[in-house]
Amino acid sequence: MRLFYDIIADKRDGRVLSGEDISYFLDSYLSGDLSDYQMSAMLMAVFFNKLNDMELRVWVERMLYSGEVIDFSDIQGPVVDKHSTGGVGDKISIPLAPLLAELGFFVPMISGRGLGHTGGTLDKLESIPGFSVNISKEEFCNMVRKIGISLIGQTPAIAPLDKKLYALRDVTATVESIPLIASSIMSKKLAEGIKGLILDIKVGNGAFMKNMEQAADLAKTMKGIGERFNTKVDVLFTDMNEPLGFTVGNSLEIEESINVMKGMYIPQVTELTLRMAATLMVSFKMAASVEEGERTAKKVLESGRAAERFRKTVEMQKGDPNVVDNINLLPKALKRKDVTAERSGYVAGMDALSFGKALVQLGGGRIRKEDSIDPSVGFIFAKKAGDKVEKGDVLYSIRYNDENKLLNSLGYLKESVNISETVPEKRKTILGAL
Amino acid sequence: MRLFYDIIADKRDGRVLSGEDISYFLDSYLSGDLSDYQMSAMLMAVFFNKLNDMELRVWVERMLYSGEVIDFSDIQGPVVDKHSTGGVGDKISIPLAPLLAELGFFVPMISGRGLGHTGGTLDKLESIPGFSVNISKEEFCNMVRKIGISLIGQTPAIAPLDKKLYALRDVTATVESIPLIASSIMSKKLAEGIKGLILDIKVGNGAFMKNMEQAADLAKTMKGIGERFNTKVDVLFTDMNEPLGFTVGNSLEIEESINVMKGMYIPQVTELTLRMAATLMVSFKMAASVEEGERTAKKVLESGRAAERFRKTVEMQKGDPNVVDNINLLPKALKRKDVTAERSGYVAGMDALSFGKALVQLGGGRIRKEDSIDPSVGFIFAKKAGDKVEKGDVLYSIRYNDENKLLNSLGYLKESVNISETVPEKRKTILGAL
Repeated sequence: MRLFYDIIADKRDGRVLSGEDISYFLDSYLSGDLSDYQMSAMLMAVFFNKLNDMELRVWVERMLYSGEVIDFSDIQGPVVDKHSTGGVGDKISIPLAPLLAELGFFVPMISGRGLGHTGGTLDKLESIPGFSVNISKEEFCNMVRKIGISLIGQTPAIAPLDKKLYALRDVTATVESIPLIASSIMSKKLAEGIKGLILDIKVGNGAFMKNMEQAADLAKTMKGIGERFNTKVDVLFTDMNEPLGFTVGNSLEIEESINVMKGMYIPQVTELTLRMAATLMVSFKMAASVEEGERTAKKVLESGRAAERFRKTVEMQKGDPNVVDNINLLPKALKRKDVTAERSGYVAGMDALSFGKALVQLGGGRIRKEDSIDPSVGFIFAKKAGDKVEKGDVLYSIRYNDENKLLNSLGYLKESVNISETVPEKRKTILGAL
Repeated sequence: MRLFYDIIADKRDGRVLSGEDISYFLDSYLSGDLSDYQMSAMLMAVFFNKLNDMELRVWVERMLYSGEVIDFSDIQGPVVDKHSTGGVGDKISIPLAPLLAELGFFVPMISGRGLGHTGGTLDKLESIPGFSVNISKEEFCNMVRKIGISLIGQTPAIAPLDKKLYALRDVTATVESIPLIASSIMSKKLAEGIKGLILDIKVGNGAFMKNMEQAADLAKTMKGIGERFNTKVDVLFTDMNEPLGFTVGNSLEIEESINVMKGMYIPQVTELTLRMAATLMVSFKMAASVEEGERTAKKVLESGRAAERFRKTVEMQKGDPNVVDNINLLPKALKRKDVTAERSGYVAGMDALSFGKALVQLGGGRIRKEDSIDPSVGFIFAKKAGDKVEKGDVLYSIRYNDENKLLNSLGYLKESVNISETVPEKRKTILGAL
């Protein structure tokens, strides 16, 4: 076998690595034969010189087969999942999964927790009393087969190499690399045994991708990996300059999601949920066009069937199914503070990043992985970008439990709502598709 | 203090690091607060994005002051040293140091061991029976003050941060970086308390620098560091496409060095020794021109005074001083094999890298740091580039002790001497100066 040094030097100097070299390098890291310091040098070299299609295919393959790969080939119907690159107020997975199941898809959804200013689906689900995201692989597979949906957290059995690599990237400034991001996401998603993935790439100041160029690069990379593993990847580029929808905070977002599932039309949230469902329907020839798919999906939401499917899901994962009918069963913050407009005009923008950081300060997010969170706190928006406001109008309401935390939170919110005198340009939620 | 992650990300993204950040990062590494894997990510980022003059100054400073810095400010006379980037058959330090001492310089020379295909001054010196390169710092300083010269190995007290960093670079493919090479050399040399340094940058297939562009970059970087630390750095660029002089191998090179010190004019070896001495003489205003300096230095060699100074040095470092008069006291290999020309013509080139690797196979060099070496083995050249040869003429003679090792060595020598039919272009030993 070649020296680890020479393999690192090859990548450093821009030479293409052979599949054998990549396999040897990654497998040695998983087994512990390759040290963290050699891997971090390689990761930084990959940051600079990237991975070509062939290299990336092998890289993903080694990550994927480092653990269990679920086999859903017996299922008669499209097995799909959704992934978002992360944003503020992004609760789309929650209404989307039951909607997809109602439409005939099977959705084995393995999600993550929130970290830093972005929220996580698992934390939101856990604000439902009793809800467990830690069910066994067997229960998970049975649920998917039986009701077309299961919503769980990452297990150590899935892509353990990704877990080890991610922990190293997280402390060596090698997170922000397109091939490393793409291989990390795709190895975990492919391990779910899916045939289709809808990828929501958030773009803007509240997202990891700050501009469309980076976002398009990630999209192409993810689609390329999907092709090589026979998994169709559809991409939407969506705005993350303002928080998504009218709530930020775990139980508040569950409430908003349930409202969407019950057929309430909530701007941005319903729009995105429908578009994602319709995009998958077109991909799997269940609709002739996105418009037709959206009409079908809208009817399902309006019928209340998605909410019923969600009720079943909650029940099977040991949560209280009555939350679907009675929002008051969700944890509520004790206190409320309304923030009002200091002058009249139009809301030109609401800073997603600030609200994300402010939620962490309230106790609703975490800075370190081991932090616990308060599911009840958050923000409810009365106004969003484009709305007309009069001086003194409520812009948003803060739900909180601790005065000191409120104070810290307000520190992040000083410039968070931008009011202009002129009518601002209308913003789109969906910026494009690939 | 800032997060290590953010400091690595700054260098990764091409931002200039503050002096405070560099100090914090390097000091934390020395103390163990910063992990190897974070440092190796930084080193790879430096490989790609380099260090600017300010960054490099702080980097060198932290390395230099990580350990003891010798103070020779009481010495009335120029304190200087020589450094070579490493080559095959490069024994220049050995005749140069006594010559410089005879000329009025003080030479506190801390050298290294051979690794891979390049030889090391310490290994050569240790082929002298009894010679110790591990004397105390006090003895070292006393020798320099008393006889103007001492020749020792790296001590743990000098630039310990360099030692730690080098060990990491050596396994993470971050050796080949101009700022990292320059800071490593300069921090150790500056710690010797010198005011002048002659730097021999080897260029060619047997050297780390494969072309003049890289060599010039290293030269400028080293001179820049020298300026910031009030140390004059003179640079010679010298050819390392063929082995230097007529011997390769530890005791054989001591023999050749002693002959030079006794005034024998050996092409390449005497030429380089004189040029280096003269360059330092001009720098310290001890000669009006390089030519004048060379004439003065040549007289010293011819007088035998350099050999006498070397005898004193050997004696004070516990070696057998009689080797200066009686070469036969040096270790001799038991066997000899002459390699002859297979056809008539002119020697167009002798491959330095092959002879370096072949010496390792004979047992005269090391692959791993912990390998022991056989000082007696090596090569004596009967012909060098440019020489006319007849078929059957001896090209070089191999001195060896073990038939198996000879066989392995011959495997590296198959294409090592290139014989052309036409008179080859004359090669220069000294390619330039800066």
